[in-house]
This record gives sequence, C-alpha cells and structure tokens, in this order.
Amino acid sequence: MDIEDMARGIAAGERRALARGITLVESGRADHRALATNLLESLRPLKRQALRIGLSGTPGVGKSTFIETFGLMLTGLGLRVAVLAVDPSSARSGGSILGDKTRMERLSRDPKAFIRPSPSQTHLGGVARRTREAIDLCEAADFDVILIETVGVGQSETVVSEMSDLFLLLLAPAGGDELQGVKRGIMEMADIILINKADGDLRPQAMRTCADYAGALRLLRKRPQDPDGFPKALTVSALEDTGLVKAWDEMQVLSDWRRETGHWAGRRAEQARFWFLSEVREGLLARLRREPVKGAMSVLADKVGRGEMTAAAAAEELLDGYLAARG
Amino acid sequence: MDIEDMARGIAAGERRALARGITLVESGRADHRALATNLLESLRPLKRQALRIGLSGTPGVGKSTFIETFGLMLTGLGLRVAVLAVDPSSARSGGSILGDKTRMERLSRDPKAFIRPSPSQTHLGGVARRTREAIDLCEAADFDVILIETVGVGQSETVVSEMSDLFLLLLAPAGGDELQGVKRGIMEMADIILINKADGDLRPQAMRTCADYAGALRLLRKRPQDPDGFPKALTVSALEDTGLVKAWDEMQVLSDWRRETGHWAGRRAEQARFWFLSEVREGLLARLRREPVKGAMSVLADKVGRGEMTAAAAAEELLDGYLAARG
Repeated sequence: MDIEDMARGIAAGERRALARGITLVESGRADHRALATNLLESLRPLKRQALRIGLSGTPGVGKSTFIETFGLMLTGLGLRVAVLAVDPSSARSGGSILGDKTRMERLSRDPKAFIRPSPSQTHLGGVARRTREAIDLCEAADFDVILIETVGVGQSETVVSEMSDLFLLLLAPAGGDELQGVKRGIMEMADIILINKADGDLRPQAMRTCADYAGALRLLRKRPQDPDGFPKALTVSALEDTGLVKAWDEMQVLSDWRRETGHWAGRRAEQARFWFLSEVREGLLARLRREPVKGAMSVLADKVGRGEMTAAAAAEELLDGYLAARG
Repeated sequence: MDIEDMARGIAAGERRALARGITLVESGRADHRALATNLLESLRPLKRQALRIGLSGTPGVGKSTFIETFGLMLTGLGLRVAVLAVDPSSARSGGSILGDKTRMERLSRDPKAFIRPSPSQTHLGGVARRTREAIDLCEAADFDVILIETVGVGQSETVVSEMSDLFLLLLAPAGGDELQGVKRGIMEMADIILINKADGDLRPQAMRTCADYAGALRLLRKRPQDPDGFPKALTVSALEDTGLVKAWDEMQVLSDWRRETGHWAGRRAEQARFWFLSEVREGLLARLRREPVKGAMSVLADKVGRGEMTAAAAAEELLDGYLAARG
C-alpha cells in the first residue's frame, strides 16, 4: 500500500482513496496502524477544517430521514457532506447503524455525499479512534460538513461530542412526562435540540414539546461558548422538509460566533489534547500485549497465581523493569 | 511508620495494627503505597487463608441485620469474623454503607469481630484495590471468615465476586414479577441465594420466592465449580435467627468440596492473576502523572492542541521515548 499515493488521492477528494484510507485507520493490525499514523501525519499540514456536527437521537426519532433530507439540502447548497457513525452497539451485536445505506438511498447516490457505516469493533474506544481519524481524513478530502451520527444511549454521546464542533439532539414529539427521559448530561451537551416529526397530526404536539425543551434549556446555566439565545430548541419535519433551512441558519450563526470569539479554535485544541491522552492510554495497553512485556507479565502472573508474590509487588516489578519512564 | 512492627502486630491479630494497616493501604500517597506494598509482601509468607464470603443485596433486604446475626452466630462458634464493604456510591455521595457501625451494634462490640466501613474513594478501582488488600491483611491477622458486603448495583458485584471464595445473594420475599429484577449476570455469580425475612406474615411469600429462585437456578447451566445441588436457594430470617445454621452448613459443604477438588485454589490463583493485571493498568496510569513523563506529555499535548502533530503521532513519540518497553 503506497501511503503517498493514498494521501494525494485523499487530498484531491477522491472517494476511493478516502474509503481505502478509512479502511486503513479501522484496521487493528500493528503494521496498518503505523501506516495510518503516517497517512494522518502527512495530511495534517493541509489544515483543512469542516464543520463537524454531532447528531444523537434514540431509535424511532427519524434520524435516517433527517440525515437524508438535511444532507440533500446541504449538497443542494453546493456543500460536500460526509456521514459517519459511532455505534456503541456494534461491539456486541455485530449490527451497525448506517450499515444499511438504503435507509438513505438518495443521499448515498449523491456525488457530493459520502456515507460510511460504523465498523464492527470490540469496544467503544476503538470505534471512537476510528471515527476521529475518519473525520481527519474527510476534512483532508475537503468535505465541508461532517455529520457524526450516534444513538442515544449515554456514553456514546460524550464520545461524539468530544469530536464535534456542534452537537444536535434529535427528539420526537412527546408528552410532558417524557421530558424527564432525556438525561440532564445529554441536554447539557446539546447546542441545538431539534423536535422532528412536526408534521400532520403530530405538529401541535411537536410545538408543545419544543416549548417545553426551550423552557428547560433556559433553566440550564449559560455556557461561555454560547451567544445569547443558545442552546435553542427548534421544530423540524424531515419528512416534509420544513424547518431545516432555519436549523441550518442557526447552526451557522452559532459556529460563526464561536469562530469569531475563539471558542471554536479553543474547543478543537481541547479536543485534540483529550484525544492525545486517549491515544496514550490505548498505546500503553497495546504495549502490554507485546514482547518482551507480555512474556515477563505471564511469568509474573504465574508467580502471583501461585502466591509467591503479591499483585502489588509483581506489578511494580513489571512496570519498573519493562515499562519504566526513561529519565 | 515502622512496617516491621505493624506486620508483627497484624500477624499477632492485634486489631489496632490491623486498623492502621488498612488505613495505610487506603492511602493515596505514593510513599504510603510503597510502604503498603512492603507490608503486604512481608505478610504474604504466612499464607493464612480465611473463607472470603461476598454478600450482595439491594437496600431494604435486611443486609445489616443479616450480617449482625450471621456474624454473631459465627463468633459464637468461636470463629473470628471480619466485615468489609465495597461501596460504589461512596465515590460520588461521600456517604458509605457500613459507615454507621450502630447498624451492627452487637457485632461491632464483639471482640471476635472486626468491622471496617467502606472508605471514600474516587473510583470503583480504588475501592477494589483497598478492599482486596484489606482482605489480605485480615487473613494475615488470622480471621477465619471475611464478609465482603456490597449493594446490588451491577458492577460492584463483579468486583466483589472477583475477591470472594463464595458469593451470597440476599433477597427479600417478592411476587413472581420481581424474579425478573435480578440480573441474569448476578444470578450466575451467586453460589447461594438467601431469601431473608422468612418470618411472620412474610414467611409463606419467602417460601414461594425461594421455590421460584430454586427453579430459576436449575435453568442455568451447571458450573464446573459446583457439586450437585449448587447453586441453591434457601430461606433465612436474620430477625428471628432461623435458617442461618443451615445456610452456614451449606457454605461449608460447598467450600469443602471446592477445596478437595482444587476449584478453591484454582479460583484463588485466577483471581490473583486478575488483580495483578488490574495493578499493572493502575500503575501505568499512575506513571503518566509523574515526571519526566508528565512534562513531556504536557509539551506534546500543546503541540497536538496547536495542530502541529496528530494525536496518534504524539502518543507514539511519548510512548517510545518515555514509557517504552525495555528489551
């Protein structure tokens, strides 16, 4: 695999090179990891930035329809759109959201759009790294907007929020009771809450739900990264394509303000530091699985198992002997 | 602090030395950690073993009353009993189960018993290490039975199960519907299920619940570490002190069988290996917070934050330069 060719292809916006690059960052093989690191490092100097939009919503809220309609609106404006997914369930079930591109049939055929299903991975940390690096590749391929989809199950929202510039929470119209169903922590992550399905019989209910959430958002402490009026709640209908232009306007108002005030760059820098620490932790664990550490570990584990050493003393011997900090 | 004196005191079964030893293993200070490792290592050659009994039950099930009555029964048999707690809630709330010894007033005054409340810790990992090392100290102090209490909230049961020889699940009498309330994973951990409050009006309900669980246990796959008839469900009344002698008999039948068949030693060895790996992971993270790694990390994090390096490349540089495996 020639990394220089691949980097050139990605920089030129070639979809095939991008797809192959993402496959490379998804690989668990050590030699692939080294190549992936080179690829990412060689594309970094381009310093291209897309608007990264995190999108969360529980199943049934109309997420696929929203992404299809919203994505087509953006490509209609001449923007290039990439769609990625963080699917915490893929680890166990093997199933994946976005695995079925037919759910977004029109968007997937749009030459200005790029849709990539969530890979099967063994843990959320692996999915997170792959998605974060796929984002870097999509930015290098000069996409304007990157949508990062996740399902609303708690931890994956935090992961997606840590790689997004804006975070959207998509909700369905609901009675007052269900307001409690959104965890406070997820509400606090949201920059814009979109009440979908504001169409037909559900419209009045959607308006009420929107008013409820707008009220709830006002109760939250104002965040430094928000201009007046944000975070806000809006109604949309992905089915009838209403409210999406307004929602996009608000996203641009928010991101422009953050760019001007330095919050955008500040957040990106903070995220980069966060992911660096995450990489260090993952890298440490990977090193435990390599020789000679693995061999020493096995010998010490046997000693501990036979009661010839305490766990604490054996861990110290391993760490001092094989993984110690170099002065 | 003189570690040799402390070790001698603990080996002689002195409560004050034991309490001070546990305070030492609970400490977060690096110099204390080194002393704690020495203390544990110096007591290891005694090779004393207690019967470690993990005990889980949701609030309201009568756990304190059970421990008091069961503990007094054991001390009445001439056995020395230690009670420890793994409280996953103490991290957040600052509150702790067993914090209030008055809940076990008679047991806490018994010279053959030693009760230690759960410490406040920042994470379950910290609580786990401290409890595991407190167990080692109690064994060195020649206790016969160590009860490790936890509340029924999922992850803490796994932690307690990883440090116990037997695992008891304490339940209250309930209708058939509530059978579903116990997670299958926790059911599968249990060696003996005790239906408490089999007294007064609740007695018939307790008998039914016991029969329900006995039926459910038969549906689980037989485990190699169990003789015929185990895991089993029994009724007890901690309030009226009925069924506890029978329960203790069953615990002895099970532990004797496991000792004879080698499952006891096998499980202990496996647990020791597990905790060794856990120590290695904790130790790696602790090393990241020390100089010179901390300094290099900060410099690299800034570079990543400014976009001068990718997270992957910076992590690799750190790991290769400062924390690499020595060949």
